[in-house]
Amino acid sequence: MSRTLRLAVIPGDGIGQEVVAEGLKVLSSALPADVKVETAEYDLGARRYHATGETLPDGVLEELKGADAILLGAIGDPSVPSGVLERGLLLKLRFAFDHHVNLRPGKLFPGVASPLAGNPDIDFVVVREGTEGPYVGNGGSLRTGTDQEIATEVSLNTAFGIERVVRDAFARAQARPRKKLTLVHKNNVLVHAGHLWKRIFDSVAAEYPEVTTDYLHVDAATIFFVTQPERFDVIVTDNLFGDILTDLAAAVTGGIGLAASGNINPTGAFPSMFEPVHGSAPDIAGQGKADPTATILSVAMLLGHLGYAAEAAKIEDAVAADLAERASLTAPRTTSQIGDALAARVAG
Amino acid sequence: MSRTLRLAVIPGDGIGQEVVAEGLKVLSSALPADVKVETAEYDLGARRYHATGETLPDGVLEELKGADAILLGAIGDPSVPSGVLERGLLLKLRFAFDHHVNLRPGKLFPGVASPLAGNPDIDFVVVREGTEGPYVGNGGSLRTGTDQEIATEVSLNTAFGIERVVRDAFARAQARPRKKLTLVHKNNVLVHAGHLWKRIFDSVAAEYPEVTTDYLHVDAATIFFVTQPERFDVIVTDNLFGDILTDLAAAVTGGIGLAASGNINPTGAFPSMFEPVHGSAPDIAGQGKADPTATILSVAMLLGHLGYAAEAAKIEDAVAADLAERASLTAPRTTSQIGDALAARVAG
Ligand SMILES: CC(C)[C@H](C(=O)O)[C@@H](O)C(=O)O
Ligand SMILES: CC(C)[C@H](C(=O)O)[C@@H](O)C(=O)O
Repeated sequence: MSRTLRLAVIPGDGIGQEVVAEGLKVLSSALPADVKVETAEYDLGARRYHATGETLPDGVLEELKGADAILLGAIGDPSVPSGVLERGLLLKLRFAFDHHVNLRPGKLFPGVASPLAGNPDIDFVVVREGTEGPYVGNGGSLRTGTDQEIATEVSLNTAFGIERVVRDAFARAQARPRKKLTLVHKNNVLVHAGHLWKRIFDSVAAEYPEVTTDYLHVDAATIFFVTQPERFDVIVTDNLFGDILTDLAAAVTGGIGLAASGNINPTGAFPSMFEPVHGSAPDIAGQGKADPTATILSVAMLLGHLGYAAEAAKIEDAVAADLAERASLTAPRTTSQIGDALAARVAG
Repeated sequence: MSRTLRLAVIPGDGIGQEVVAEGLKVLSSALPADVKVETAEYDLGARRYHATGETLPDGVLEELKGADAILLGAIGDPSVPSGVLERGLLLKLRFAFDHHVNLRPGKLFPGVASPLAGNPDIDFVVVREGTEGPYVGNGGSLRTGTDQEIATEVSLNTAFGIERVVRDAFARAQARPRKKLTLVHKNNVLVHAGHLWKRIFDSVAAEYPEVTTDYLHVDAATIFFVTQPERFDVIVTDNLFGDILTDLAAAVTGGIGLAASGNINPTGAFPSMFEPVHGSAPDIAGQGKADPTATILSVAMLLGHLGYAAEAAKIEDAVAADLAERASLTAPRTTSQIGDALAARVAG
C-alpha cells in the first residue's frame, strides 16, 4: 500500500528558499520508496507582499489546512516594515492553526563548539507557548506620531491555554530519562500572568510525581543558560520568554544554523508547521552560505510528528555524524553541499 | 567647609544586610575626612512585612525623599508570596522616585573568568528604562483560581518616557570612546511599543551624528551577548528586556556577584537608588559567603552620581586590582574579608 505525504512548503524570504530546498532533498532521501511526497509550494513573503499587498490570503490559509504538515523557511525582509510579514504571515499561521506547542530543542552535538568555555553537556528542550502572551497582537497607540504618543501591548493569558501547554511539557518531561521540568516566567513582576502559570504548573505537577519541578524567573534563567546549561531538561514558558530563551539556547549550542523548531498543534485539528529558528538573513541570501542544518533538523521533527520516527532518527543521526566531522573540514561547504552530504548519509 | 552626605540605607532581605555593611565600609574609607556621612537605616523587607504587613509605609517614603541617595541591598524572601515585596517595595521606590534611567554596566574586569570561551573584551553599559513597559503593574485577572481564569499584563509606553531615556543613552554613547548605541526591542512582534521606541530612537539619533546606531531584536541580542559581546558599547532598552539582558550581561562578565546598578533620576527631583543586580540569595544568607563586590561597585556609582568622581574611581580601581588577584588566592574570603581588603586598598 502506498502512502502520500502532503507537504505545504513556504520558502519565504532571504535564505529561506535555499535552506528549504536542502530540507526537501533530505526528506526525500529519508522516506521509504512507497511514500509519495506531494509538495505544494506557496509564494508568500516579501516578494508577494510587494507585488500584491498580500501577506496570507484567506484562500491560501484555506488550502494549507489540507496539508499534513507545513515546512517554512524564513520570513522577513528589510524592504517590508518590521512586523508586517511577521504578524501577517508567520504569527498568523501559528495563531490560525493553533500551534500552541512551540517545540525547540537545545542540544549541543558532539564535535560542535559552544561559545561557552569547557563545552558543557547541553541537551534540553524548550516548550514555548505559541498562541498567547504578549504575542496576541492586542495593543495599539494613541496620538501616534506625536510627542504625546502612548503605545500599549497587552499580554493575554488563559488557564485553558496555559494548561494545555503545561500538560504537554509534563508529558515530555515524564518521557525523558531525567524527568525534570522547569517553569520560566517573571512572577515577581508580572504577577497576574505569572501566578496563573505557577498555579497551573503546580496543579499539573501533582499528577506527575516522578517529574522533578523547578521555577526560575526569566532573568535568572538566562544566567543558568550560560553558567549551568546542563541543569535543564524540559523548560516550559510563555511565548515571549520562549522566543528569547530559544535564541540564547541556539547560541550556546553552536548557533542558529543548527536550531530546529516545530509549531505543533497536538490535536491534529490543523497542520503543524516546522521551521528553523533563524531568520531570513538577507545579508547572505542567494550566496550558498546559509547552513541548511537547522531546516534539515526541522524536517526530522516534521517526520517524527507525522509518525515517521525511524526516518526522523536517521536524519538526526546523519546530522550528528556530519557535525562530528565538520571541525576537521578544511574548506567551508555551500548550502547545497551540506544538503547533499546529509542526503547521502541518510540514504546510505 | 565640611559637607554632609545623607544616605538612606535599605539592607533588605537575605544577604542584603551583609553586602550593604561592606558597601558602607568602603564608602567611608573612600570619602575625604571633611565629608560627614549621615546614614539612616530603614528596616524594610520580609521581616517588616511579617511583623506589620507593611512593605513601604507612606511615612518612610516621605522620609526617603530627603536623602541624597539610597543604598539598597536586596529584596525578596521565599516566606513572602512572589511579587509582594518586589512590587510593594523595590518597584514602588523605582516608580515613586521616577528612576527612569536604570544603569547597568557590563564589564569583564581583567583577571575575571567569563563563562564564554576565549574571555572576550566586554565593556558596555545597559540603559534600561525604569518606569514604564510591562513593569507598570497594569494587569489583572478574571475568574481567578478557576479553569476559566484569564490574566492580563499591559505594557504602557509613552513618547515622553521613552524620549528621556533614549536621550540619556545617546548622551552616554557620545561621551564614550566608541560612541555606539544599540536599541534593543522586539518591534517585529510588539509593533506598537516597538515602533514608538524606534521612531524616537531614530529622531534623537539625528541630533547625534557622531554616534553609530544599531537595532536588534531582543532575541537576537541574547545571541550576540554570548557570541560577540565586544560589539556592544551602550544599549538602550525597555524595562523588561533590560531586566533580562542585564542578568545575562552579569553572567558573561563573571557573575551577579560583580554586577552593579543605579536607579537614577537624572532630574534630581528625587533621590537615586543604587543596588547590586543580584537578589537576596536566602540560601547563603548570614554565612559570610556573599560577594559584596557588586554592592561596592554600586557604591562607586552612587558616589559618582553625587559628584564624587575621584572617590568613585578610587573604588573602581581598588575593585579592579582586587579582582586581578583573586584567581591566585588559595582560600575563599568571607564577605567582610573582601570588604576589608577593598576598604584598605581604597584608603591606602
Ligand atoms: C520572526 C519572529 C516573529 C519570530 C518570533 O518572535 O516568534 C522568531 O523570532 C521566532 O523565534 O520564531
Ligand atoms: C527583583 C525584581 C523585581 C527586579 C526586576 O525585575 O527589576 C530584579 O530582577 C532587578 O533586575 O533589579
